[in-house]
Amino acid sequence: MPKIDLDAIAQTNRTGYPAPYDAEVQGRLYRRLAPATGLTAFGVSHVVLKPGAWSSQRHWHVGEDEFLVMVAGEAVLVDDEGEHVLRPGDCAAFPMNDGNGHHVQNRSGEDCVFVVVGAGENKGGDYSDIDMRFTADDGYVHKDGRPYETRRVP
Amino acid sequence: MPKIDLDAIAQTNRTGYPAPYDAEVQGRLYRRLAPATGLTAFGVSHVVLKPGAWSSQRHWHVGEDEFLVMVAGEAVLVDDEGEHVLRPGDCAAFPMNDGNGHHVQNRSGEDCVFVVVGAGENKGGDYSDIDMRFTADDGYVHKDGRPYETRRVP
Repeated sequence: MPKIDLDAIAQTNRTGYPAPYDAEVQGRLYRRLAPATGLTAFGVSHVVLKPGAWSSQRHWHVGEDEFLVMVAGEAVLVDDEGEHVLRPGDCAAFPMNDGNGHHVQNRSGEDCVFVVVGAGENKGGDYSDIDMRFTADDGYVHKDGRPYETRRVP
Repeated sequence: MPKIDLDAIAQTNRTGYPAPYDAEVQGRLYRRLAPATGLTAFGVSHVVLKPGAWSSQRHWHVGEDEFLVMVAGEAVLVDDEGEHVLRPGDCAAFPMNDGNGHHVQNRSGEDCVFVVVGAGENKGGDYSDIDMRFTADDGYVHKDGRPYETRRVP
């Protein structure tokens, strides 16, 4: 059925981030909508951030575009240009390979909800604030290339 | 800047539909967000439907996935399975080539707003309720293949 029964899709806070970088995403609850609905041309995640949670470590993708639309609550988008409050209906676009690390933080006292779409080719990417990169084969490495022991969640 | 200044992006109700099929989309005001923000891996439209307006004629795509998230107001999703009310936060997915014609109608007395994402390969598609199809080269034709005089808006 085209209208999605969100409650029927498993919600998880799983992350592959190595400690201590996993701490900020413990309150990030997401659903992968594309595999559940038969979409193959792009990925879609429905994300709830509990108060204090982050969407991810601040990052950018070499080969993938991302687009976010805010659905409920309030969040703060952080990127190289500063901080921008996002409220329902606000949208943000992150073109591949722009080098502008971004993420969303819930600094409010209530849950916030957004939908994020991604597509392109996984060529890895970089984190702006920590000693970590991600690779095209879904590994995590230090800036100097030494691997972490954990891997990205597919 | 990743946060999108929606007011800075042109809004239009342009359509390529031949008469009389253009009547229902006169109150559909949309912004193309991808070209304005540097996204190339998928298309994104921000759509306002005035009271009474439709998102399109009921249709499906042979080679493109579509995904919709409701942002404000209330609309009715119509597809082969019936009618489904969409409220803010509701999502709908339309996998390519599923043959399930869909569209959204604003039957309320207020504007409604949604964001729709599309990607894949343009291989044309079909309209469920009218004597028209669309072709891979953005033409409109009758079910028997005779062309209409107008063409799809890119």
